[in-house]
Amino acid sequence: MPSAVILLSGGLDSATAGAIAREQGFELHALSVDYGQRHRFELEACRRVAQALRVKQHQVANVDLGLLAASALTGASPAPVPKGRSAEAMAEGIPVTYVPARNTVFLSLALALAEDAGAADLFIGVNAVDYSGYPDCRPEYIAAFEQMANLATKAGVEGTLRFKIHTPLVNWTKAQIIRRGVELGVDYSLTHSCYDPDAGGRPCGRCDACLLRLKGFAEAGLTDPLDYPA
Amino acid sequence: MPSAVILLSGGLDSATAGAIAREQGFELHALSVDYGQRHRFELEACRRVAQALRVKQHQVANVDLGLLAASALTGASPAPVPKGRSAEAMAEGIPVTYVPARNTVFLSLALALAEDAGAADLFIGVNAVDYSGYPDCRPEYIAAFEQMANLATKAGVEGTLRFKIHTPLVNWTKAQIIRRGVELGVDYSLTHSCYDPDAGGRPCGRCDACLLRLKGFAEAGLTDPLDYPA
Repeated sequence: MPSAVILLSGGLDSATAGAIAREQGFELHALSVDYGQRHRFELEACRRVAQALRVKQHQVANVDLGLLAASALTGASPAPVPKGRSAEAMAEGIPVTYVPARNTVFLSLALALAEDAGAADLFIGVNAVDYSGYPDCRPEYIAAFEQMANLATKAGVEGTLRFKIHTPLVNWTKAQIIRRGVELGVDYSLTHSCYDPDAGGRPCGRCDACLLRLKGFAEAGLTDPLDYPA
Repeated sequence: MPSAVILLSGGLDSATAGAIAREQGFELHALSVDYGQRHRFELEACRRVAQALRVKQHQVANVDLGLLAASALTGASPAPVPKGRSAEAMAEGIPVTYVPARNTVFLSLALALAEDAGAADLFIGVNAVDYSGYPDCRPEYIAAFEQMANLATKAGVEGTLRFKIHTPLVNWTKAQIIRRGVELGVDYSLTHSCYDPDAGGRPCGRCDACLLRLKGFAEAGLTDPLDYPA
């Protein structure tokens, strides 16, 4: 069975991307990155999702992107997470939750792990439709990373592996992602999307991530299994 | 004064690249990566070199590439470091000291830091002449990373920064690097190159890194200030 590396963030998208990779017949090496997020609930969700995906191994890499000051998700004095924004407002520009070079750091670590494990295939749950503000979620970025990866590595240069970055969700709406995930048996109650959960990990229901997720479930005609404030 | 990020490994090449960047008028943000190297002397050398370069700040990012098993420089049961190899043997293939995607991980972190600091320029002391086995030291790799970096980032996409990866040493022999460094006042006694130092940090004099370094000093008509075994 061929191996693939799946980047798991604990969220809805990467859980679905993992289920798609598994359905395609890959044995999964899951990688999550602890980069100094504001809260630990994402990593707990990563562990739950990895277990549900029956991955061969799940590794958590610690990377102190806390060296960055500018993002709402890292740094000592992060900017406040926006709340209650309309879909139009979210679609404008790059959100304050942007973390410099985040997916590049994540994919670089996934590439290292993939080469070490002899896996040519990397899966990442990026999406360029519903939340298009992040530059490192776009197909042209992914293509450039893939090209670089095959020049960067021993296996790529020697031709023993031809690295491919799979982005199965890139052109789907959130509702399409959720419908496909439900078909594949993804248990979304295990996932965590909120940028600003309460002390117990309960989602706020008002940040961009919560609003986008709730809209996706509504458009899919389904109910989000998470427990939101009334 | 424009800012640049310099990747410091503690070695001779990155110390020289840093001196070149400073001479070009950049204010330096130094980044070193603690990736689970076999010994700590590299990081001590990084701190000495950063101080000598009078950098604005020096950050050490912890990244556990210890998740990789395959390299002689990381992992729980690393392969032995080769000793006493001829220049011809070194030039053949990719050395066992290759760490999967190392420069890609390092440059990704440097890119994150550069965007955060508003620095368009990144310096890395890669060299494709004297030790050409590493795929991620070649100009075609660097060009692909640069292209990817400008698609990956908010600043690149919005056009506020045009990221450039500077590799001033890429086409120089080790002797040329040392001569230029001496001209610029680099104190090579502060640097550390050995893959297999003794318990006190003294270089072995026989691994690829030591042999290449000693050959460079000899060809430059200079004496390496480090203390080698007789």
